[in-house]
Amino acid sequence: MAAVLLKSLCDGGYQGSIYPINPAGGEFMGLPVYPRIGDVPGPVDYAFCFVPASLSPGFVDECVAKQVKIIGFYTAGFSETNETEGIQLEHDIVRRATDAGIRILGPNCIGVYDPSIGLSFTSDLPMESGPVGLFCQSGGHALYSLRSATARGVRFSKAISYGNACDINECDLLEYFMEDEGTRVIAAYIEGVRDGRRFRQLVKEAALRKPLVIFKGGRTQAGIRTAAGHTGSLAGSEAVWHSLMQQAGVIEVSSVEELIDVVLLLVHLSPVFDTRVGIIGLGGGSSTLAADACEDAGLSLPALPSDIVRKLKSSTPLAGNILTNPVDSQHFYVAPDQYADTLSLMAEWQGIDFLLFQLFLCGGPVPPIEEQERYRRFINVCLDFHAHNDKPTVLVLHSFDAVPAGEEVLRWAQDRCAEAGLLLYPSLSRAAKALRKFVLYHRARRDRA
Amino acid sequence: MAAVLLKSLCDGGYQGSIYPINPAGGEFMGLPVYPRIGDVPGPVDYAFCFVPASLSPGFVDECVAKQVKIIGFYTAGFSETNETEGIQLEHDIVRRATDAGIRILGPNCIGVYDPSIGLSFTSDLPMESGPVGLFCQSGGHALYSLRSATARGVRFSKAISYGNACDINECDLLEYFMEDEGTRVIAAYIEGVRDGRRFRQLVKEAALRKPLVIFKGGRTQAGIRTAAGHTGSLAGSEAVWHSLMQQAGVIEVSSVEELIDVVLLLVHLSPVFDTRVGIIGLGGGSSTLAADACEDAGLSLPALPSDIVRKLKSSTPLAGNILTNPVDSQHFYVAPDQYADTLSLMAEWQGIDFLLFQLFLCGGPVPPIEEQERYRRFINVCLDFHAHNDKPTVLVLHSFDAVPAGEEVLRWAQDRCAEAGLLLYPSLSRAAKALRKFVLYHRARRDRA
Repeated sequence: MAAVLLKSLCDGGYQGSIYPINPAGGEFMGLPVYPRIGDVPGPVDYAFCFVPASLSPGFVDECVAKQVKIIGFYTAGFSETNETEGIQLEHDIVRRATDAGIRILGPNCIGVYDPSIGLSFTSDLPMESGPVGLFCQSGGHALYSLRSATARGVRFSKAISYGNACDINECDLLEYFMEDEGTRVIAAYIEGVRDGRRFRQLVKEAALRKPLVIFKGGRTQAGIRTAAGHTGSLAGSEAVWHSLMQQAGVIEVSSVEELIDVVLLLVHLSPVFDTRVGIIGLGGGSSTLAADACEDAGLSLPALPSDIVRKLKSSTPLAGNILTNPVDSQHFYVAPDQYADTLSLMAEWQGIDFLLFQLFLCGGPVPPIEEQERYRRFINVCLDFHAHNDKPTVLVLHSFDAVPAGEEVLRWAQDRCAEAGLLLYPSLSRAAKALRKFVLYHRARRDRA
Repeated sequence: MAAVLLKSLCDGGYQGSIYPINPAGGEFMGLPVYPRIGDVPGPVDYAFCFVPASLSPGFVDECVAKQVKIIGFYTAGFSETNETEGIQLEHDIVRRATDAGIRILGPNCIGVYDPSIGLSFTSDLPMESGPVGLFCQSGGHALYSLRSATARGVRFSKAISYGNACDINECDLLEYFMEDEGTRVIAAYIEGVRDGRRFRQLVKEAALRKPLVIFKGGRTQAGIRTAAGHTGSLAGSEAVWHSLMQQAGVIEVSSVEELIDVVLLLVHLSPVFDTRVGIIGLGGGSSTLAADACEDAGLSLPALPSDIVRKLKSSTPLAGNILTNPVDSQHFYVAPDQYADTLSLMAEWQGIDFLLFQLFLCGGPVPPIEEQERYRRFINVCLDFHAHNDKPTVLVLHSFDAVPAGEEVLRWAQDRCAEAGLLLYPSLSRAAKALRKFVLYHRARRDRA
């Protein structure tokens, strides 16, 4: 893991000095390895530590001597074990560090991702900054949510994995991102709160200033027990948490996927205050699914105005099509190039706040080339529409498959959409739920103002 | 579409006689094409029709003369258009056919899949029969749910797409599958019911005899409107429907995915009456997700007994692992070959009804080869466990990705699991919800007996 981190610093073009430390000495990726931190020639701001828990107090002492400012601990085996030894070791490192004015991140975390300075914990994340600040109590969730979100075009100011939160905790991080000028949207995964009173105060203040999206892990009894074993968190009642989120105006989500789904909207769309959606796509069964998914999520589907129906009818035969909302216009199969006109007709409709394009992926082991080409054509029409229209638009590529077929075309679609800022969702209900939360957030914000 | 059907009959090894009919005559795939159905030399049992709606009454007349027994109509443009012409045409074909004792399937459907006789509507479905009978009002849902379910190892007795249900309707099909000896589990997608009284009676009788899983499309106002435009269905109140499903003991699901998720359990597992689940996998964050997902779905997670904890401790170091339920035993990274022992320890636990193995897929554009190899190793350990243990087991391969990375390894996993009868799910909550419905069904059935 230390090697992964070092490699990512080198690959990411980290501009500061990097000093690998290992008693064995030698060289790593062309860098001299120092036996002890005391041997490092220059000053050290940030030490990131992989030594076993039992050796960590000694390492803190060396950092004190070296006047390090902050120590991050990848090391696990502290309070989260719920064993006396680990709990005492955690107290011990905090005491030694705090006495010397050093801050601790973690332990049991993967550290900081800050693309603006080329700092990362893995080599595959983009070195481009963006408006989202993330703090995440789980290292796994931090890394994997960054991968998933960046693949969908979201960029981050900073992301911080903070593990057991023995010193730097959710309150410090919330305060940081609230003040940080590079951060326009705050996203968080929290397993437990260390300082309830301060958190309660801060969460309200932060949510007033910026959209704040939080996913709480460890909500159920079993989840709380697991979170305790994971990051030593003490989670409180789900009802109390939920009411705090509501009062504070936090966008509460119930999965990491939903966190990303909502952040995508917050990053790309201007405020929208109503939930009227117009749907267009291919297939009667999937149009019925789309209608149910949207209304289930609390979106409204106004009926298609008669003048648009009339115009659609002039180009679309009635058989096999549904000219209501959702529109199922299979005219695409006959005249893909003219399909843009069908979409433009929908965009003329003043009575909706969002357009949702839906394409069902037909499954099967590998979609035949013609099928894949059809997907590409449809997605290209949507991209082209998006490039020339201001109407808030989402594209849903959905299927029943447990393993979606046609990864190549899907990844192509994801890349193109991310590049173009066209919001892509893998399921109707995920798109619908995210749109609903997005609107409710802006509505509550407006009503509070 | 006619060509696709013909090709699938030829590819599927359909044993009966196939007579393509087209005014142009000629040859198709080596078969002589007859200008009219009257020209066919032998008797015709089943005619499947692609002519435009306006020509369909004439086609029915020809079928009457030929003494055809059943006509399936792919043709759309009937009552689902809600236009006088289409409605009258539909009445017309029904009258002409009924007067002659001919049954109509559809219109606006894709017909019948019966692997036992090599009958299909597409060339890519397996020609192997199984215990599930499916009837599906949407042709798209029929085809795509068959593709998704067969990829996961489910096999079908027959699947019938029945579109507008102008003659053969959900009641006829329910009655058929209820009596059919080759069908052990009945699954259905229904947009609207034609004969409420008969349906009410039949659904109760069918559910008493066999597990009956139903997904209703057109539940919301917008969904009902869309279903009307799709198959001309008149859907009733959601509350009335739900209470009928409850009373009748139907397993009600809210998506096609869930339909397949539940069918998978019904096909593979013997009845289970309790919801206690033991979870084991990799990662603290994903263990917390697993605990929350299971308890959210109404499963219970008993605490890991101390004797198993003790045994696990002897092989698994404490740091970075969670030895409770869920177990997060990252021991796998160190000793993948010995991981089977860890799973076997869990299987010794008498206090659980199910084992759930969870592996988080780490995302990123393409998982590195080592990562993919790690997935394969983990899945192989699970497969091996499954081959030697009777404990009901599900495997969840989950991620945050909108486009899951590593399609190759995922498809490999799906194929291997389908072959071995190891139940594979793509998300924790989908697995948990399906397990819950499965147990509730068996519990209700036992209590009724």
